Amino acid sequence: MADIHAPAGTTPLDRLLRPRSIALIGATERSIWSVSAHDNLKRFGFTGNIHLVNPKGGIIHGQEAARSIAEIGERVDAALIMVPEAGLLEIIDELGAAGVAGAVVLSSGFAEAGAAGAARQAEMTRRARQAGLRLIGPNCLGFASYLDNTAIWTTPLRRPMPGARLAIVSQSGALAGQMEQFAYQQRIGLTHLVSTGNEADLNVADIINHLAGQAAVRAIAVFLETVRDPAGFLAAVATARAAGKPVVVLKVGASAAAAKAAQAHTGSLVGNDAVFNAVCARHGIIRAYSMEELILTADLAAHLGPMPPGGLALAAMSGGLCEIALDNAETLGVMLPGLDTATMAALAPVLPEFAVPGNPLDLTGGAMLKPESITAALPVLAADPRVAALAFVFDVPLKEDARGAARKFIRHVAEGFKQTSKPCLLISHSFGTVSAEGRALVEEYGITYCAGGISLGLKALAPLLRAAPPPAPALPAAAATARPSGERAVLAYLAARGVPVVPQHLATCTTDATAAAQKLGGGLALKIASPDIAHKTEAGGVALNIAPEDAASAYEALLARVRAARPEAEIEGVIISPMRGGGTEIFVGTLNDPQWGPAISVGLGGIWVEALKDTSLRLLPVSATEAREMLEELRGKALLEGFRGAPPVDRAALAAAIAAIGNAALALGPRLVSLEINPLLATAEGVEALDALTVWED
Amino acid sequence: MADIHAPAGTTPLDRLLRPRSIALIGATERSIWSVSAHDNLKRFGFTGNIHLVNPKGGIIHGQEAARSIAEIGERVDAALIMVPEAGLLEIIDELGAAGVAGAVVLSSGFAEAGAAGAARQAEMTRRARQAGLRLIGPNCLGFASYLDNTAIWTTPLRRPMPGARLAIVSQSGALAGQMEQFAYQQRIGLTHLVSTGNEADLNVADIINHLAGQAAVRAIAVFLETVRDPAGFLAAVATARAAGKPVVVLKVGASAAAAKAAQAHTGSLVGNDAVFNAVCARHGIIRAYSMEELILTADLAAHLGPMPPGGLALAAMSGGLCEIALDNAETLGVMLPGLDTATMAALAPVLPEFAVPGNPLDLTGGAMLKPESITAALPVLAADPRVAALAFVFDVPLKEDARGAARKFIRHVAEGFKQTSKPCLLISHSFGTVSAEGRALVEEYGITYCAGGISLGLKALAPLLRAAPPPAPALPAAAATARPSGERAVLAYLAARGVPVVPQHLATCTTDATAAAQKLGGGLALKIASPDIAHKTEAGGVALNIAPEDAASAYEALLARVRAARPEAEIEGVIISPMRGGGTEIFVGTLNDPQWGPAISVGLGGIWVEALKDTSLRLLPVSATEAREMLEELRGKALLEGFRGAPPVDRAALAAAIAAIGNAALALGPRLVSLEINPLLATAEGVEALDALTVWED
Repeated sequence: MADIHAPAGTTPLDRLLRPRSIALIGATERSIWSVSAHDNLKRFGFTGNIHLVNPKGGIIHGQEAARSIAEIGERVDAALIMVPEAGLLEIIDELGAAGVAGAVVLSSGFAEAGAAGAARQAEMTRRARQAGLRLIGPNCLGFASYLDNTAIWTTPLRRPMPGARLAIVSQSGALAGQMEQFAYQQRIGLTHLVSTGNEADLNVADIINHLAGQAAVRAIAVFLETVRDPAGFLAAVATARAAGKPVVVLKVGASAAAAKAAQAHTGSLVGNDAVFNAVCARHGIIRAYSMEELILTADLAAHLGPMPPGGLALAAMSGGLCEIALDNAETLGVMLPGLDTATMAALAPVLPEFAVPGNPLDLTGGAMLKPESITAALPVLAADPRVAALAFVFDVPLKEDARGAARKFIRHVAEGFKQTSKPCLLISHSFGTVSAEGRALVEEYGITYCAGGISLGLKALAPLLRAAPPPAPALPAAAATARPSGERAVLAYLAARGVPVVPQHLATCTTDATAAAQKLGGGLALKIASPDIAHKTEAGGVALNIAPEDAASAYEALLARVRAARPEAEIEGVIISPMRGGGTEIFVGTLNDPQWGPAISVGLGGIWVEALKDTSLRLLPVSATEAREMLEELRGKALLEGFRGAPPVDRAALAAAIAAIGNAALALGPRLVSLEINPLLATAEGVEALDALTVWED
Repeated sequence: MADIHAPAGTTPLDRLLRPRSIALIGATERSIWSVSAHDNLKRFGFTGNIHLVNPKGGIIHGQEAARSIAEIGERVDAALIMVPEAGLLEIIDELGAAGVAGAVVLSSGFAEAGAAGAARQAEMTRRARQAGLRLIGPNCLGFASYLDNTAIWTTPLRRPMPGARLAIVSQSGALAGQMEQFAYQQRIGLTHLVSTGNEADLNVADIINHLAGQAAVRAIAVFLETVRDPAGFLAAVATARAAGKPVVVLKVGASAAAAKAAQAHTGSLVGNDAVFNAVCARHGIIRAYSMEELILTADLAAHLGPMPPGGLALAAMSGGLCEIALDNAETLGVMLPGLDTATMAALAPVLPEFAVPGNPLDLTGGAMLKPESITAALPVLAADPRVAALAFVFDVPLKEDARGAARKFIRHVAEGFKQTSKPCLLISHSFGTVSAEGRALVEEYGITYCAGGISLGLKALAPLLRAAPPPAPALPAAAATARPSGERAVLAYLAARGVPVVPQHLATCTTDATAAAQKLGGGLALKIASPDIAHKTEAGGVALNIAPEDAASAYEALLARVRAARPEAEIEGVIISPMRGGGTEIFVGTLNDPQWGPAISVGLGGIWVEALKDTSLRLLPVSATEAREMLEELRGKALLEGFRGAPPVDRAALAAAIAAIGNAALALGPRLVSLEINPLLATAEGVEALDALTVWED
């Protein structure tokens, strides 16, 4: 018994995920879970020891079962717990006592099933921690490490495939099974399949961290319902990216309705989708919106590796296909750049009769009869300076003819691909499955193949052609000690933080008002200064276009109106500012997402933001360069670019102000709910914050 | 020889497309086209006579070849012409002389290859008409009528499948081949596959008309690069729809770049995509944006038949899948309505443990163990009054287990489907191919199956759940005889056609101006009336906010400015109108598309239209109901709905005015290029056209 408690050579997590011996607790012929789990181990060719535990003992799945965990008599790394919930806690204690490193908990009826279930889950987790046992689940299907011929998985899995590069992690067990099915039909080899379920102990971040350390893993596909540990998740993603393993995520909850359903389903908090988009953009997480896109994008990332951003050259042997590709590329934001004249000139002599140089390049049916034209044309396309990657549209044949005539054809494509160092891929004409023979053929020639068809293929490729996110700018140096509140204080704070603000004078008597008005000159705006009045117009607290000589009377009239409307309000005075006209009003607002932290939203002011929801969102801090990109994302951006003969606004000054506002918000610390500048007036000469407010947590 | 010239029992088109004897002209073992065409006829089990013609005679494809067409000695219905272009015209004459009904012309190098090719094509067409010969092509692959075991097709085709319902028509031969391949992998049986190529004689409209008369055809999938005969095309679509055969179209040219590529490729005019969208909306053409969507949507339409518009109930055995479905449905505009309380109450007792009533309905993995819960739940979902159609997510198994355990499961689904008369379908979890066994299984149970997966499946289904277009409103009764031009005349014309317009007085002297101003009262707008001045502001021809007492001096100042700026302009006088303020400015403009005729565009005025391109487009005429729908499509529609506390504008009056403007434009006849009202001012009290102009063809 001594060696059962021998110290592990690796961490408990490694022992759980790469076990040398496995125990199936609650094994029985009558359970399809037990049968499947045992079958999977046999099918995978697991080389370690398999132990079965059933209180009744006897022969199960063709081998002698132990009556208890203690009876196993050998060191066990990982256990699959298939016992009813009633006996679960005891089993956990016993596994801990026996020195088992970790367990998969299959059962449902925990946190996903209401408060009582959540309490049961908390108790289970407590007992596991006490026992030193790592847990996967509950409410999961388990995990498979194809690299190690290991599976603790409770529905039938296919055997490991050669050339595996892709790991799948899913919070939903059923989805994991569906993704395995889809990957199999595409003959995409998996390194791992992990279902994390309710994540009572180990969560997606732990799994991603583990996968980041496995050399054979080249990309990680993740299905998320929620992120339980945002900081841990981002750290794991960063670790994986640093190890050259891109992370592609399908996260549900893009729709308001889905957010509700996920809550009912898993008791999870589904974060705000726009914020999660910003998280992905900042942290280089590639986002997919269907299961197929998730797997195909991750597979392309696994094969193509890190790609320079830029344009795609695409060649096909049909004009119709080229036109579909053009339409789809435009919708997807994939750039098919025009070729330069040298490329056009170099293409012309190598193309089949009737084919015309261009991008996309229609090689016409003539290339079927003259496949050497493909070999010649592909490197010429790739050499164009505007081309970052190269795609050729052709089907790897189905089983029956994988070794036939098409083989010669694929060879011509491969020879063309070999003459360029830029990333190349083959995309099928239409969506199809891939035979083992077809996959072997492209592997033999070292060709990256996507069988998603031209439309889904371009969709899967699109995110890989986009630029990687810039490193996050440095956090602003000094935290603010004050908590500015109210227009005047907030504008003063912003001014101190480098944001241009409109001049303001606080008048507390008519003499003040007249003096300020004469100093400012021109048309004036008068606004009530009161910590109690957020909506100044409604309280009669605004007077516009006041001439300096009318300032005193306007001051008195304004105060009289406000005192009548809001007799209880504390009044500090009246703010006098110069009127501003022309220019474009910009809205800038920050928010503090409970999961992902501070973010900033920019939009065109007034009706644009309110009626059109035309905004761009980023996590904070943002650099001026990122702020400039935010402006580019606005549908109404034409208004900034010199619309209707107006001069373009000073976008550099605007971007700098947005970045400074973001930093000003960050410096106010986590209790700031929101800092809103509305409007930030942008003109050709610069920008100026005209009004601002803060909202605090308490 | 007599019977060669015997009158055909059917039209030449019928004889060509449903031939009883076929001649392959230019047959030779050395041509892969000839070999493929002959093989296809054998593989299809063509029961008529096959004749081969080669000037050298001899044994070709295992049978004796005739040396000339005249030598065949039997009535021939259809010919495949595979001779070089040099001998083509002679062959056409000979085919005509021999009484052949029609021919497929394979060769390329015609209209798609420049002006000389176009001339060759025109001459060929002339000769064919003279000879009484119908043509398919040139630059095509031919056609296959699976129903008649007939193929004149020059690349290898798969044999006919049972249960065929779907016809494919494509202007691109290569695309037709790819669609056949995709349909085969989905085990979707085809009734016809027609490649129309350059359409020198027969075009897509002729083929659709023919297909509309074939009982077995249940839907028609069309790939279009251009529409050569818009009126004929719409008539054919109407004929097909009347025969219960929906038409689904994938038309390239959605992107500006694709329009350019198609022009290079086929010498075709690719119409304006927004107009084609309006054409589809008006004429009940279902539009697809990828090859896969085209085939899957058409196949669903073929199986589900006409559907009532409305919401979808969706059930699956995974919460994750339900959440993906929700997200995708929201993006695609598929409504998943909430269930009413009676449905919720009726569902609760039949669901597996832990499953919660809702839509989408997550039956959980528990339904695997309790499949009778599916049978029970499906009709309850379907009975909900808000549900128009029902989808269940499950995979028809692959070949190896199509007859195994899953069979029982599919039977439970089928039994559930049978208890409702609403349309039901099965959607696969993820995109996959379908085995013959899998297809046979669903056919046996009468289940409509889409293997596109949840994301593409919902996309394919989405257009079928939308309401059919309303019948086009009646054309306006009376055509106008005048050709109004200039603001004043156009506004007067609009007023006569029932469009509310702002009051106007044409002043030709200061006395006039003063009289009009006093009559109108309030603030006034003065505008130059000149047929030569389109841009009044630039010419100094506008004065706003004029008080009645200042009307005479403003009149003189305005005239002086205009005479200085545009001394050559003919001046009719000065239009005096009341100033309008508030409300929302609407832009309404008509256009006359060269292919599709008059259409109307509506948008929010000013920057909304110009910077945001926020417009909705319909073919004319439009009813007030349709005009209302156009307003609903505007992104900025919140501005009409009582934005920021303003009262909502009178949308009924606005819609009526838009319909009246459309009718007014139609009444002006085909030489009207555009009638533009900008702005049409909409307020809570009604609408008023403030300015308008016409553009005429010459």
